Amino acid sequence: MMIACLPGDGIGPEIMAQALRVLAALDLGIETAIADVGGTAYKKHGHPLPPETLDLARTSDAVLFGAVGDPDCDNLERHLRPEQAILGLRSALGLFANLRPATMFKGLEHMSALKPEVASAIDLLIVRELNGDVYFGEKAQRVLEDGRRQGFDFMSYAEDEVRRIAHVAFRAAQGRKGRLCSVDKANVLETSQLWRDVVIEVAAEYPDVELSHMYVDNAAMQLVRNPGQFDVIVTGNLFGDILSDQASMCVGSIGLLASAALGERQTGKGTFGLYEPIHGSAPDIAGQGKANPMAMILSLAMLLRHSLGLEEQAARVEKAVSRALADGITGADLGGSAGTSEVGDAVLERL
Amino acid sequence: MMIACLPGDGIGPEIMAQALRVLAALDLGIETAIADVGGTAYKKHGHPLPPETLDLARTSDAVLFGAVGDPDCDNLERHLRPEQAILGLRSALGLFANLRPATMFKGLEHMSALKPEVASAIDLLIVRELNGDVYFGEKAQRVLEDGRRQGFDFMSYAEDEVRRIAHVAFRAAQGRKGRLCSVDKANVLETSQLWRDVVIEVAAEYPDVELSHMYVDNAAMQLVRNPGQFDVIVTGNLFGDILSDQASMCVGSIGLLASAALGERQTGKGTFGLYEPIHGSAPDIAGQGKANPMAMILSLAMLLRHSLGLEEQAARVEKAVSRALADGITGADLGGSAGTSEVGDAVLERL
Ligand SMILES: CC(C)[C@H](C(=O)O)[C@@H](O)C(=O)O
Ligand SMILES: CC(C)[C@H](C(=O)O)[C@@H](O)C(=O)O
Repeated sequence: MMIACLPGDGIGPEIMAQALRVLAALDLGIETAIADVGGTAYKKHGHPLPPETLDLARTSDAVLFGAVGDPDCDNLERHLRPEQAILGLRSALGLFANLRPATMFKGLEHMSALKPEVASAIDLLIVRELNGDVYFGEKAQRVLEDGRRQGFDFMSYAEDEVRRIAHVAFRAAQGRKGRLCSVDKANVLETSQLWRDVVIEVAAEYPDVELSHMYVDNAAMQLVRNPGQFDVIVTGNLFGDILSDQASMCVGSIGLLASAALGERQTGKGTFGLYEPIHGSAPDIAGQGKANPMAMILSLAMLLRHSLGLEEQAARVEKAVSRALADGITGADLGGSAGTSEVGDAVLERL
Repeated sequence: MMIACLPGDGIGPEIMAQALRVLAALDLGIETAIADVGGTAYKKHGHPLPPETLDLARTSDAVLFGAVGDPDCDNLERHLRPEQAILGLRSALGLFANLRPATMFKGLEHMSALKPEVASAIDLLIVRELNGDVYFGEKAQRVLEDGRRQGFDFMSYAEDEVRRIAHVAFRAAQGRKGRLCSVDKANVLETSQLWRDVVIEVAAEYPDVELSHMYVDNAAMQLVRNPGQFDVIVTGNLFGDILSDQASMCVGSIGLLASAALGERQTGKGTFGLYEPIHGSAPDIAGQGKANPMAMILSLAMLLRHSLGLEEQAARVEKAVSRALADGITGADLGGSAGTSEVGDAVLERL
């Protein structure tokens, strides 16, 4: 078993170091290899996703990803910006299924901007399609015949793209409360109409799952009004980007939320995937030992579960993080004072 | 002066009746004419936006619009569905600037799902582009050469489309706290990159306005975390649809929020526009005299201000609504017991 570790930019390396301490402590005999990605990779190798990094990721059983994003790189041409590294990995590795759980952590309800009674009910999973939609369609700036500049992006979904993510979502709902809400904008978009038609077709294979449909504008409202109503949400790449960030902020503690991006390849013990915290590279606090590594450590737990089939070890890591939180070990993002390595220590002690 | 009144479906006619009582009480000598729209129009005339309705709207100084949406029509072909009426009006009348204010009403902070201290700070205006983006690009379902079904939509903005909405937003910011946040997804979309470039160009003409940029996923988070940070937000049609509904739900009382859709034509005293409550047709409570007409009445106030130049009368209507709320006159949507005409009475008494 080999995990490709891509720490990336900003706080990425600091939080990755803590996740690797946790992995070492589990003593599973898993190999790790580290490679550059993002702005860091651009500065060293002239490209945010160098071929060696992509090769390493491709030959690994799973990828543990820190964060990319570097203000120094904001004015580079699009294909050289740090964000292209994560988009490139998702596309080249066929990581089409993004799982973004948002669950209220007991005792942290006061961190949410929502009322405690609204926030405490949050326990949802967003399943976001990650290889299609307007993200990967033809796009360009051009000058029209009449001389005006135009920017355009082609949005589309084909039935097989919708079908495979729908299956992931229905199966996820079966493993949870059995409710799936598909979010689209079928009253305006043909891409959404196809999405809805195919989701309804797939539903026939999952009579035990209760399927509903919601327009994206209404979903954005409902995630504020009563996020507790949702179990699993499935949606396209663009709407998933927006709603999953909104949902994670409802939980109030973005420093605690992990995510998985799964492909189709089986690793023997699970599914090949890339795991990363929801939060970004936070350049403002990078290198100061302040960043909360919990989301990174919880991403490792997801990796152990989904790609390596190590459910027990995954649960062990998650429990250690919960215990540390329950014992009041919180970083600055949660109003506490524990630094990056202190949080790492606290989790290790509770493993 | 002539106002075209389009009550539409569901609760539309009931709430329109109350707005027209308020207009009559102001005794401004303004002519009104009523026409069918939405599912109601489809059932009577075979089309959700009959030519007579469009003609009436075109020759009026302003349009007062109730709501469209009728479950009976959900399975009609797309071009016959009620929603096409509002999309058709926006497009045919060139209504490119959607103003959606979201302000916390004093004393109603407890209605929001957000904590009172977070909700009470909400005082923002979303300026949404309404004639372009993926809403009006080429769109279809097709079968690809390899036999797969695909749905697609073409997303684009041309520089003049961005420029005119940017001017509206900068001027709105000048009349408020002088801060404008432009929301896009320029790290992924070329449409957004052009948007951002043009907004920056236009900014040179408004040195007194402080401009910032935010990615849409971050904006969705910030609207939960701290909506009080925003003054004016300007964004495209699709992101504006999502964020303005999210913002209005943050206020907690969607039955109180009005909106304006302005065109370029000057009416002599202001700008031609269409005014509608943010809420929909609420078919579940239609015809029961329960719907809160306040958002409809506040839409009339916006009409008086923006299209007829009657600022004083607009303020008078808004004050009457605020007083009624302060006196505890609230409908079922706000946990109160006042019916549609009772709320109308209460506003009239306080005019
Ligand atoms: C960095 C960016 C391209 C990316 C996205 O939009 O997918 C990010 O927002 C995310 O959600 O992982
Ligand atoms: C009904 C629908 C087409 C419309 C839109 O998406 O613009 C509505 O959601 C709105 O925001 O006015």
